Amino acid sequence: MFDFLIVGAGFAGCVLAERIASKLNKSVLLIDGRGHIGGNAYDYYNEDGILVHKYGPHIFHTDNKRVFDYLSQFTKWRIFELRVTASVDGHKVPIPINLDTINELYGFNFNEKQLVEFFKGVAKEISPITNSEEIILSKVGEELYSKFFKYYTKKQWDLWPSELDASVCARIPIRTNRDNRYFSDKYQVMPKHGYTEMFKKMINHPNIHLMLQTDFLAIKEIIPYKYIIYTGPIDSFFNYKLGKLPYRSLRFSFQTLDQEYFQDTGIVNYPYEYDFTRITEFKHLTGQKHTKTTIAFEYPTAQGEPYYPIPQASNWNLYQKYQTEAEKIKNIWFIGRLGTYQYLNMDQAVAQALDFFENTLKKVK
Amino acid sequence: MFDFLIVGAGFAGCVLAERIASKLNKSVLLIDGRGHIGGNAYDYYNEDGILVHKYGPHIFHTDNKRVFDYLSQFTKWRIFELRVTASVDGHKVPIPINLDTINELYGFNFNEKQLVEFFKGVAKEISPITNSEEIILSKVGEELYSKFFKYYTKKQWDLWPSELDASVCARIPIRTNRDNRYFSDKYQVMPKHGYTEMFKKMINHPNIHLMLQTDFLAIKEIIPYKYIIYTGPIDSFFNYKLGKLPYRSLRFSFQTLDQEYFQDTGIVNYPYEYDFTRITEFKHLTGQKHTKTTIAFEYPTAQGEPYYPIPQASNWNLYQKYQTEAEKIKNIWFIGRLGTYQYLNMDQAVAQALDFFENTLKKVK
Repeated sequence: MFDFLIVGAGFAGCVLAERIASKLNKSVLLIDGRGHIGGNAYDYYNEDGILVHKYGPHIFHTDNKRVFDYLSQFTKWRIFELRVTASVDGHKVPIPINLDTINELYGFNFNEKQLVEFFKGVAKEISPITNSEEIILSKVGEELYSKFFKYYTKKQWDLWPSELDASVCARIPIRTNRDNRYFSDKYQVMPKHGYTEMFKKMINHPNIHLMLQTDFLAIKEIIPYKYIIYTGPIDSFFNYKLGKLPYRSLRFSFQTLDQEYFQDTGIVNYPYEYDFTRITEFKHLTGQKHTKTTIAFEYPTAQGEPYYPIPQASNWNLYQKYQTEAEKIKNIWFIGRLGTYQYLNMDQAVAQALDFFENTLKKVK
Repeated sequence: MFDFLIVGAGFAGCVLAERIASKLNKSVLLIDGRGHIGGNAYDYYNEDGILVHKYGPHIFHTDNKRVFDYLSQFTKWRIFELRVTASVDGHKVPIPINLDTINELYGFNFNEKQLVEFFKGVAKEISPITNSEEIILSKVGEELYSKFFKYYTKKQWDLWPSELDASVCARIPIRTNRDNRYFSDKYQVMPKHGYTEMFKKMINHPNIHLMLQTDFLAIKEIIPYKYIIYTGPIDSFFNYKLGKLPYRSLRFSFQTLDQEYFQDTGIVNYPYEYDFTRITEFKHLTGQKHTKTTIAFEYPTAQGEPYYPIPQASNWNLYQKYQTEAEKIKNIWFIGRLGTYQYLNMDQAVAQALDFFENTLKKVK
């Protein structure tokens, strides 16, 4: 009899396995349907020996010292401040939009104060703001909205910004200074030897047993356990009985080139050209030196592995119904990005799992 | 209920999991006490991104076309003919001993016929041959025995050749031609993307569930199954009730150097100097290009992971007793290097597993 069956070996599942094993001294069976740990943060050396992220670029950033300290037990870090450029009108300009972006794009020589005035001049007054189109128009107006947001969002979600909650585009800052880092968090780092190595260390404990290539359904009647922690899609647990929760997925097309570098930064976005949204060059992210380089073209898709909950009210409503069902079942908890149907950055997934451990699991007999 | 529980995810375990899953369409739970598959053939990219063999150099070689064809389903190959040199009297000379070895060591300019005469002149006549010292003395005499065999064997086994079955040193050829390859098999290849990748492909089947960091004892009462295939040490299954079967172990000390290469060949042996027996430089084996290089010093030890059954009659006798016990138990088979307490090269382990599948498992209901 295992004390805990944890379904899913991504951030939520691995953090909880580690906490339960090392702090509660309980036995854990950690399972995953895939053949590897790490969830979508899984990285590996490809056939040319280049470290790549199988499910797209994962750049760690957090303001949460507790999360940073917790993960620091399992990895050393490499300082890495992500810069992203967008290919717009034949220019590669830094994003999120900042002072340099506007000056480069229009050939201005604005200072910060002038940029504030410029934004005021082009912004539309909209009240109340009800969707992602309106929030961007209200900040930077029609032209920048079109160049940077409108078509990118359509590619990313197959929805126009007007069809998406305001929160989606609200997450993207508009800066008036020259900070051209993609994130502004206090800790901007990459696990020095990769995410998979970090996860391996995290779950390397005699109380943790790892089972791969194994769906929950394949073993739930076979292997006895006291409690379940389910980090997979909550609707899958209920066999989709109330309907399917939609997820946006991604497809990656990898290419290894016989040249040292392909582009100047880790990620270049293509806001309105091409079918892909961006190109990642992994060596910028990992710091690896190699005579070749691997890049990945990123194509948003409707089908495939679940990546992003689709931020629309109808989906939140359906999720709430599943959550009500879940509360009726004893000895099971749903957690993580898929288990709680919400977009969580990596650090948020860790924080959610640590909180859940402290507030709930520690009180379980 | 799993049809088969396979204990150990090395060559024997993975081959059988694959055969059972794909040919018998039965379900398999494949478990391993370690956190990875591949047994002692496991390779991985280390912290500097260099592909290394965690448990020492594994070079694939076989004359068995069936084994080669079988494994070719799961990997492409890189042709690699291992050359080994030995550091003797300040020279790096090729081994196994051949025409070049003797000419370089003594400054001779022998042809093949002259070398045959030379060996005849130095060889000792011994009959009957009862141990490893006698078989070498009978081929090349005292001086070459001392330089190449005597102290190397002592380091390797902590036994003098006189204490070891003749079969141990008999395996090492003495050549009179100029073939300086370490092996003479028809197929001398390395899995192009490493052993671990090959194993991953092999067991990537929906009927196979993989459980890591899990000893047999931890789950044998918990998880139901019909049959067991046990590839771990046979004495461990019986809780050592008749005594412990001894194994020789190895310890590896890895170093990554900031230079492109360290030595000219994949392996250099040190027959009588130092405490290590040999130094492996992995880039020669894998063909990887990298600005740095990782080498491993190999130290034989008495304690540690089981590597080699110790080839002495008393150990075979003890193994026979365990085998008799094993035959009394229904629905379990012991197989592989550890399960049958015999030194098997990788190809021999595969052949043993394929034979076992054809002759025994296919007849099981």
